[in-house]
Amino acid sequence: MPVNNNPLELRLERLIHATPDKLYRAWTEPELLKIWFTPRPWLVSEARLDVRPGGSSLVVMQGPDGQSFPNRGVYLEVIPNRRLVFTDAYTEAWLPSEKPFMTVTIRFDAEDGNTRYRASVLHWNEADRQTHEAMGFHTGWGKATDQLEALVASL
Amino acid sequence: MPVNNNPLELRLERLIHATPDKLYRAWTEPELLKIWFTPRPWLVSEARLDVRPGGSSLVVMQGPDGQSFPNRGVYLEVIPNRRLVFTDAYTEAWLPSEKPFMTVTIRFDAEDGNTRYRASVLHWNEADRQTHEAMGFHTGWGKATDQLEALVASL
Repeated sequence: MPVNNNPLELRLERLIHATPDKLYRAWTEPELLKIWFTPRPWLVSEARLDVRPGGSSLVVMQGPDGQSFPNRGVYLEVIPNRRLVFTDAYTEAWLPSEKPFMTVTIRFDAEDGNTRYRASVLHWNEADRQTHEAMGFHTGWGKATDQLEALVASL
Repeated sequence: MPVNNNPLELRLERLIHATPDKLYRAWTEPELLKIWFTPRPWLVSEARLDVRPGGSSLVVMQGPDGQSFPNRGVYLEVIPNRRLVFTDAYTEAWLPSEKPFMTVTIRFDAEDGNTRYRASVLHWNEADRQTHEAMGFHTGWGKATDQLEALVASL
């Protein structure tokens, strides 16, 4: 885990044995995202992704006991096969959400036939960053990324 | 003043005797923005506007007693001569600001040779909307818009 000195940030970095376009597909095609996005036994019951700046996303996460958590956000920046930025500060362009919690940047950088895969999650304050970490960010994103690696190996 | 039922919104609407492109110029060219943006005796001492989605803006407002207030933001949507959307939730793409306070949409719609000019300011909660109103939103934006009208009449 690289040293992280930004008190507002949580991050994940991994070298993944797949080209950037496959990882980008896994993030932007709803049927692929459903396969890897939630650590099992959680599932994605619905994914709608309007992948363009100002486009909105809805990903409904479903727990093993039937709990359902809708996650809404808006894409801020979309560079195919390179970078995705989205935030939950808006539910659609440009309506404020109940609580601006995080802004996520996913970078896909080609590296000798593999991809240097980096997720940066920035919060508006340190308390939210700590809450997110306590909610299990590292374990959750780690397991989901294991599933992502398995998926892109099969693409 | 039109009826406003959105508890998160402050707005201003006016029919201005100028074409949309002149109003758009007044919002996007720093030397023009400096002329009208703050109700006198306040001044704009500095304006840097990188007018593109993800571009940042810095407008420094200077009071008659030398007080200086830097306002930083990022453009979310830019449709030349039609619409501008920006927020202070970021200081640059995509770094969270200390406090996400508002998202501003300015619409310039042609109407019989004039412009239906509409500003919508959305806040993340009702308290912030009330604070903004108590800070003098209607008087301040009203006076600035008087100055804007005078400026575009001369373009």
